[in-house]
Amino acid sequence: MTQRALVHRISAAAPDDMSGIEAAIASGRIDPKGVVAVLAKTEGNGLVNDFSRGHATLALSLLFRRHLPPEQAARICLVMSGGTEGAMAPHWIVFERKEGGNTAGAPALAIGRAHTPALPFEHLGRLAQIDQVAAGVRAAMQDAGIDNPADVHYVQVKCPLLIAQRIGEADRRGASVATRDTLKSMGLSRAASALGVAVALGEIDRAAVSDADIGANWSLWSGRASASAGIELLNHEIVVLGMSPAWSGPLAIDHAVMDDAIDVEPVRTALRRLGLDAAGQLRPDARGRLVALLGKAEASHDGRLRGHRHTMLDDSDISSTRHARAFVCGALAGLVGHAELYVSGGAEHQGPDGGGPVALIVDRSPT
Amino acid sequence: MTQRALVHRISAAAPDDMSGIEAAIASGRIDPKGVVAVLAKTEGNGLVNDFSRGHATLALSLLFRRHLPPEQAARICLVMSGGTEGAMAPHWIVFERKEGGNTAGAPALAIGRAHTPALPFEHLGRLAQIDQVAAGVRAAMQDAGIDNPADVHYVQVKCPLLIAQRIGEADRRGASVATRDTLKSMGLSRAASALGVAVALGEIDRAAVSDADIGANWSLWSGRASASAGIELLNHEIVVLGMSPAWSGPLAIDHAVMDDAIDVEPVRTALRRLGLDAAGQLRPDARGRLVALLGKAEASHDGRLRGHRHTMLDDSDISSTRHARAFVCGALAGLVGHAELYVSGGAEHQGPDGGGPVALIVDRSPT
Amino acid sequence: MTQRALVHRISAAAPDDMSGIEAAIASGRIDPKGVVAVLAKTEGNGLVNDFSRGHATLALSLLFRRHLPPEQAARICLVMSGGTEGAMAPHWIVFERKEGGNTAGAPALAIGRAHTPALPFEHLGRLAQIDQVAAGVRAAMQDAGIDNPADVHYVQVKCPLLIAQRIGEADRRGASVATRDTLKSMGLSRAASALGVAVALGEIDRAAVSDADIGANWSLWSGRASASAGIELLNHEIVVLGMSPAWSGPLAIDHAVMDDAIDVEPVRTALRRLGLDAAGQLRPDARGRLVALLGKAEASHDGRLRGHRHTMLDDSDISSTRHARAFVCGALAGLVGHAELYVSGGAEHQGPDGGGPVALIVDRSPT
Amino acid sequence: MTQRALVHRISAAAPDDMSGIEAAIASGRIDPKGVVAVLAKTEGNGLVNDFSRGHATLALSLLFRRHLPPEQAARICLVMSGGTEGAMAPHWIVFERKEGGNTAGAPALAIGRAHTPALPFEHLGRLAQIDQVAAGVRAAMQDAGIDNPADVHYVQVKCPLLIAQRIGEADRRGASVATRDTLKSMGLSRAASALGVAVALGEIDRAAVSDADIGANWSLWSGRASASAGIELLNHEIVVLGMSPAWSGPLAIDHAVMDDAIDVEPVRTALRRLGLDAAGQLRPDARGRLVALLGKAEASHDGRLRGHRHTMLDDSDISSTRHARAFVCGALAGLVGHAELYVSGGAEHQGPDGGGPVALIVDRSPT
Repeated sequence: MTQRALVHRISAAAPDDMSGIEAAIASGRIDPKGVVAVLAKTEGNGLVNDFSRGHATLALSLLFRRHLPPEQAARICLVMSGGTEGAMAPHWIVFERKEGGNTAGAPALAIGRAHTPALPFEHLGRLAQIDQVAAGVRAAMQDAGIDNPADVHYVQVKCPLLIAQRIGEADRRGASVATRDTLKSMGLSRAASALGVAVALGEIDRAAVSDADIGANWSLWSGRASASAGIELLNHEIVVLGMSPAWSGPLAIDHAVMDDAIDVEPVRTALRRLGLDAAGQLRPDARGRLVALLGKAEASHDGRLRGHRHTMLDDSDISSTRHARAFVCGALAGLVGHAELYVSGGAEHQGPDGGGPVALIVDRSPT
Repeated sequence: MTQRALVHRISAAAPDDMSGIEAAIASGRIDPKGVVAVLAKTEGNGLVNDFSRGHATLALSLLFRRHLPPEQAARICLVMSGGTEGAMAPHWIVFERKEGGNTAGAPALAIGRAHTPALPFEHLGRLAQIDQVAAGVRAAMQDAGIDNPADVHYVQVKCPLLIAQRIGEADRRGASVATRDTLKSMGLSRAASALGVAVALGEIDRAAVSDADIGANWSLWSGRASASAGIELLNHEIVVLGMSPAWSGPLAIDHAVMDDAIDVEPVRTALRRLGLDAAGQLRPDARGRLVALLGKAEASHDGRLRGHRHTMLDDSDISSTRHARAFVCGALAGLVGHAELYVSGGAEHQGPDGGGPVALIVDRSPT
Repeated sequence: MTQRALVHRISAAAPDDMSGIEAAIASGRIDPKGVVAVLAKTEGNGLVNDFSRGHATLALSLLFRRHLPPEQAARICLVMSGGTEGAMAPHWIVFERKEGGNTAGAPALAIGRAHTPALPFEHLGRLAQIDQVAAGVRAAMQDAGIDNPADVHYVQVKCPLLIAQRIGEADRRGASVATRDTLKSMGLSRAASALGVAVALGEIDRAAVSDADIGANWSLWSGRASASAGIELLNHEIVVLGMSPAWSGPLAIDHAVMDDAIDVEPVRTALRRLGLDAAGQLRPDARGRLVALLGKAEASHDGRLRGHRHTMLDDSDISSTRHARAFVCGALAGLVGHAELYVSGGAEHQGPDGGGPVALIVDRSPT
Repeated sequence: MTQRALVHRISAAAPDDMSGIEAAIASGRIDPKGVVAVLAKTEGNGLVNDFSRGHATLALSLLFRRHLPPEQAARICLVMSGGTEGAMAPHWIVFERKEGGNTAGAPALAIGRAHTPALPFEHLGRLAQIDQVAAGVRAAMQDAGIDNPADVHYVQVKCPLLIAQRIGEADRRGASVATRDTLKSMGLSRAASALGVAVALGEIDRAAVSDADIGANWSLWSGRASASAGIELLNHEIVVLGMSPAWSGPLAIDHAVMDDAIDVEPVRTALRRLGLDAAGQLRPDARGRLVALLGKAEASHDGRLRGHRHTMLDDSDISSTRHARAFVCGALAGLVGHAELYVSGGAEHQGPDGGGPVALIVDRSPT
């Protein structure tokens, strides 16, 4: 007997629009008891004062509390990625896990989850956080039934951040935090989390990393990590997506790494590996088989794209993260033929400088 | 004996960076006497308070006045398109015309130019403006040696707008203007100009257009028009690009019409017609042959892209024109392999709603 | 036996920060059963994609549902005004009504409330809406025990708006709506609501108003209206604040009308009428007696302030409403000595063009 | 025989609107030969991509080159301060110096100027820059005929910044720069310049300052410094304004220090010292005597104004500098009765944290 992963991509008419998810629950397509995580693109600015994320999180929490006991609802990992620039469409991606079923389609998409212990505040942004995340990724792989790191194609880490009160707590214990700047702590936490994924997946050598590399040495990166910092947690929530022989069903996942913001050819190649022909733009039939695309975007730090200047880092009216999401989503939508894509920003050590990882989930059902 | 068109795409380090153009003049690559027009992407917001355009215009004017008699410098058509969102690279495109040369390569890219008489202010945004622009396009075609409208692939119209003082002048004559809102007058002037191009090129039937269609009936459009309103002129400056047997040299032009913001397949097909293989992304050698890409971007008025919601029209922090340029430039850059592209916004009647025309200039020289 | 109004101004650490209100309820300072309305400044952009308002509304609703039966919680009028530009402090203003008490301090601040019937969609932005709001204001005055319109100092109207579905409903009945542009319907609804207040308070002559004046003739205005459009209601919620002999207690209200964005002298005079000396800036003791300031801000339509140009209407990066709130809040905070002020934008017919009404609630308790 | 200072405040209709200055020159009110400096508020964002400043600078340079020999035109100090948020009016302030005249009105406003030697790049943001600026301020005081630092009321310093090429030059000499981040170098240069002023004026003790205080220890500040970094210079241009017995005429200057963003009482007191009664808002006659107001605005680093939270530092859509200018200009305009004020941002060590210096120039002519 195997497990089966279900992935539901559902359009959102607003950050608190639960109608699509409610309808799927009502019709039996989604069983709330099996929901492991919800990733979503919400339509705020994706930056400090983005209230679309909190609003969506509250609405989702209320929804799951209507259907589940509180402690079970609280266990669902909610990752809200703000910023739907360009024509990117706001949407929910609901990850569900079902027991039972035959082995047809194995190996198939597997979902694993882990929660780390609480991170001592003075470990944030340091090697100790890398180690804790790496251990968590290994636990989530085990939960997913994935032995080989090469079978992991996407790791979502939700990580803590520092606020004044937490810094104070560390101070009182005589411990010294990595930064007293709360905004910077978000970047450092994402950076250490991504490097933790890279260590767990064997993409970089743990022995070669020092504290000083975290958030600074962009030559170190994971091609499969996606990290996001949240004020509401003190530990890490980790979701691993990969291929496992212990899972069955029509879904499969693969990934590509874009070397820069328009490096779409590796994504085209990955689509082909998954059975989707993308000689030009994906045609409607193949497009329908692409269940979800999860990517990262950022402005290259040297202010250049293939030798030409970009102005994203010099724009004091629009954050570079917003520019980058719009632009990279355009490049990817030009390839796959629609823009209901999960493209998020803030890509410290998540793919090479100016580029980023792209995970693809497809439905292999016979037509 | 034929004529020959030269097109120089030159990177800009700032809105007033003339170093690249000056170097090309110093080395003899550009002869200022032959310059017909300069189109440029500058790095402002492309909206009302975009001072990067005025700054670039002043810098270009000073440059040409250093090399040409004032009246000759004043004749050069300067079209500054603000807004280099995403990774779009600021650049100059200098269009030059050279007499002489043999007929090798004919038909080839031809450049024609016309200036219309001053537009009475009460004609702006009305059928009379359409007629005046249509006549101007025909004159520019004649100047370019193009007989068949099908050989025209890009028409740039710089058109006037209304300001309080001009409205007052019309008032004193007892004439009634189409709008008293100066910002709206820009849109109406672009709209009538684009329809004037469509009439001249036979894309729409003049008899079927009424005043009420201008800026309202988006089913009427030109697949080759690009219009831009400027406060500094009272008439229209028109530049026509097309293929003519009376012109020779390695350059050729063609165009495509995108039906929506990610409809890149017609552009791929046009690249193929021009001899550039774009099975995937253009490779470096083919990329080097693409001299210039001139396109239009806008948010679709129904708030949808292929059935999914976009949020561009609801964003009160970033104008939809800025979102659209970033996104469409991403889609086109994903196809052609770089982002030094001329993608401009404000596309009334310039391509279908949410889509837009794309002109491509390539160098056919043997390698 | 009289009634007594309580007004609680409570700082907000975030749009969903209920801790201050919860603490006031826990300590008995606020009795949820008496709460009539909550007005709040939340920290979004105050425009279309301001999710701070919806987030605050949801959090407040959940709070009151924890303390009250659902239908009672639903009756509380929640008016979220987005936009805390400059140093304006996000805060809640909770209006509470208490039965009983002696007549000491009468006349005193009185609070009245009314709900109008649902507004037929084709009435929105037309004379019929003015009439319905005027009737509602009269009903709220009666509820407050205020006979003389001169005793009314602030009227908050929450009014409906049009969306596609509502326009369709009117269409099916063969009724014609005032506008098919949903954003414009917000402005028209606020405009008609403000004029309804002006009619009820005798500030303008109903017979002299025509449909064409609504949202167009800025010479018509109320010095006491504050209107806000919300998608969640189909009728009007009206809250009237004024002075009534039937109410007692230490609170009093008065108002001033600013003729332009820096016309603070009428506010100074109103403060004096209320017993607060504001020769210069209010000193800490007097400042402590100012319970709430409720004002309106907007950019003057002629682009001028006292003869000098302002650039608010030409700024395509920041909405003029955001500029105006920051600037006017600065002028008022310079007068009263702090910036936890309720300054809202979107002031159609609410005060003269470029100016606005300012209501002041003070505590007259002996010290 | 004495000298006389003239100060011309002239409205600007656009960043390149020279019509007002040209008219003043044509009518003889301004003699270009005597112009020492032009300070201006231009309508860009005041941040990295503010092209309104460069555009204004180019237009002013062309103007003065039409009236003066190039080397004389080049000597005029041009300080463009971007950002006219709220209702702040764009304007030019032309400072002119005239020889001759009797001693009536002495002491009067005096203008002194100095240029320092080029700053070695490795000195930028360090004690050596403080010392160089302090020496320059002393030279400018001597040029102005001011002996007593207490008679100095405003010091404008235009200072250099680092760019990649300059960092490279220092690297090649084996010298280490204070920062490799070019944006940060602007802040450090302004910070060291302000501290240089404070040292020259005896506001702080040079011996107590270390490199680590620069751009970090906000308890050190000048109440009279205004610093602005410009890419176009390698040294410092310093303009000192104060009172000197060697100068005559109707103009006088004084200053105040605002302790926070709404601390207008010290400004009111300074106006009184200058003979302008500001019990409430300045009345039109007194307002006409206020020739210029030069102030600084910034968001307080603790996110608070008099105990209430402000959201300026958490706003990822609008820079805190823009919020602060709009708000502080509102507070000052509420006091002086108009908004054609020079309020600039970026106030490192220029006034206390969250506050800033305000200089006032008045005309004492009998009426």
